[in-house]
Amino acid sequence: MDIDRIRAAARRLSGHALRTPLLSSPFLDKVAGRRVLVKPECLQHTGSFKFRGAWAALSALAAEDRAAGVIAYSSGNHAQGVARAARAHGASAIIVMPADAPALKIANTRALGAEVVLYDRATEDRDAIGKALAAERGLTLIRPFDDPEVIAGQGTTGLEIAEDARALGIAAADVLVCCGGGGFTSGIALALEAEAPGLRVRPVEPEGFDDVSRSLAAGRIERNATSAGGLCDAIVTPQPGDLTFPILQRLCGPGIVVSETEALRAMAAAFLRLKLVAEPGGAVALAAALFHADASDGDAVIVTISGGNVDPDVFARALATLAA
Amino acid sequence: MDIDRIRAAARRLSGHALRTPLLSSPFLDKVAGRRVLVKPECLQHTGSFKFRGAWAALSALAAEDRAAGVIAYSSGNHAQGVARAARAHGASAIIVMPADAPALKIANTRALGAEVVLYDRATEDRDAIGKALAAERGLTLIRPFDDPEVIAGQGTTGLEIAEDARALGIAAADVLVCCGGGGFTSGIALALEAEAPGLRVRPVEPEGFDDVSRSLAAGRIERNATSAGGLCDAIVTPQPGDLTFPILQRLCGPGIVVSETEALRAMAAAFLRLKLVAEPGGAVALAAALFHADASDGDAVIVTISGGNVDPDVFARALATLAA
Repeated sequence: MDIDRIRAAARRLSGHALRTPLLSSPFLDKVAGRRVLVKPECLQHTGSFKFRGAWAALSALAAEDRAAGVIAYSSGNHAQGVARAARAHGASAIIVMPADAPALKIANTRALGAEVVLYDRATEDRDAIGKALAAERGLTLIRPFDDPEVIAGQGTTGLEIAEDARALGIAAADVLVCCGGGGFTSGIALALEAEAPGLRVRPVEPEGFDDVSRSLAAGRIERNATSAGGLCDAIVTPQPGDLTFPILQRLCGPGIVVSETEALRAMAAAFLRLKLVAEPGGAVALAAALFHADASDGDAVIVTISGGNVDPDVFARALATLAA
Repeated sequence: MDIDRIRAAARRLSGHALRTPLLSSPFLDKVAGRRVLVKPECLQHTGSFKFRGAWAALSALAAEDRAAGVIAYSSGNHAQGVARAARAHGASAIIVMPADAPALKIANTRALGAEVVLYDRATEDRDAIGKALAAERGLTLIRPFDDPEVIAGQGTTGLEIAEDARALGIAAADVLVCCGGGGFTSGIALALEAEAPGLRVRPVEPEGFDDVSRSLAAGRIERNATSAGGLCDAIVTPQPGDLTFPILQRLCGPGIVVSETEALRAMAAAFLRLKLVAEPGGAVALAAALFHADASDGDAVIVTISGGNVDPDVFARALATLAA
């Protein structure tokens, strides 16, 4: 995994992925006590950064492998990213999704042309199901994070952050990244290492699913006690990846953990101040910037909003925090 | 009013206004029956395109006029744009706002450093109040739309639409613009006349406040029966401007009128498919694209979302249309 692979992915994504801007609001700056710059990957195609990695992986396949079709297992955002990237490449896609994923994500994945196979997150192993289906039908498995091309695709976000931070004169800052298995986080960290070494990635996770923060503190991979449930479904994974963890260990600062209530309040702030729809897992980094400001130093902080695929009832819960 | 003034405004706005992208979703394309490209000015600083015109006007003032301070009258979005642009230019600002404007807009305008003067929209005349205060205190009045620099600032949106449409290979399409007094609409129309003559502007208004559509059809300025009320407060004005109407008449196609329910449904679509927060008045053009598709021809349509400053309870009403 190196910067050249990320740069190559950026060339393949050019004109296909959305080049997202950096957003800001004086109201957020005031809450955080420093300048806050927001990278809104909720605006990315399919509503999350996952489209980048999916496109990078699909576009890197040999033509005959693409023609045979792909398979992915995902709680939703990777599913939609792979479905749309596959359709654009003329490839068929099977997506293995947990039966309790948000209804919207399952419906969207089907509407994007993929075949959806549901499984029980509490009793079945999605990796095993994915591998079996792949072997049986000759499909290529597109992993959600532990894949060099997927990491490279997510890392293109980091190239854009580096470019925009430079234009804004920000040479040193923490970059708070919503972290599940670590594909987004490690990709951004690798891009920043090469392009903006003064920008340091900090993984942000929800309480109860802080495997990366604990693993970084312990110096070895640690698992979550539970691998299902919680509002932040988009970034809930059992443990950091074998490929991603060494990168996180080498390049990231300590993890930051936020509560679900803080994630909901950050969603409300994104609604009010940025006019963005964030999902709970996509709002944890903004929550860290706003409500754990003492976890960072410096005049500025850069924050990713990783996705916006949220059901209306959960969004209404976030808006309700404004009345409290 | 000509293209050179818009280009000059674009140079002064560079690095200060957000360069918004064009967004899209295959789900919206399906509803509209053609490709839909969305210009999300809700992401602009202060949550609406009004920041562009305010910055253009403030930056065009002589230094001594800026130092004396500015005044504006506005239902909210122009207020916030002028307040923020004034503060950034080190100028004081008084904003005359209707007492029934959304609470959020009044609070935001004050938080951005402006002095707010409230008036009764049903019984008082904001123009008269604004002019009296300006004369009394030696302030420069920044008009909401009938001002060449303000039109030029809003027109910078059109330069960006022309550039991005060209990159997407779209040479001919209707450009649906949320229309109040016509500053945004006429500015975009002037920019497109010079930069993308195959793109034709269509003003979009809410039912009951369709003064521009009726004026275009009649060939002379017509007023609305009522000048207050309705969900689409951001784009409710008594009649088209003396400066803007001749431009609209020369360059625009027929107006399109949508219902408030259609505006709410378009807000829900922007939530679900674009991850954007639109206000009712800001969603009328998207409503026209989705629910009045037969009003346009061609393979593509370009849509502005003019603002996103909406109170949570109104947003909840929009989300409720998804359950229906």
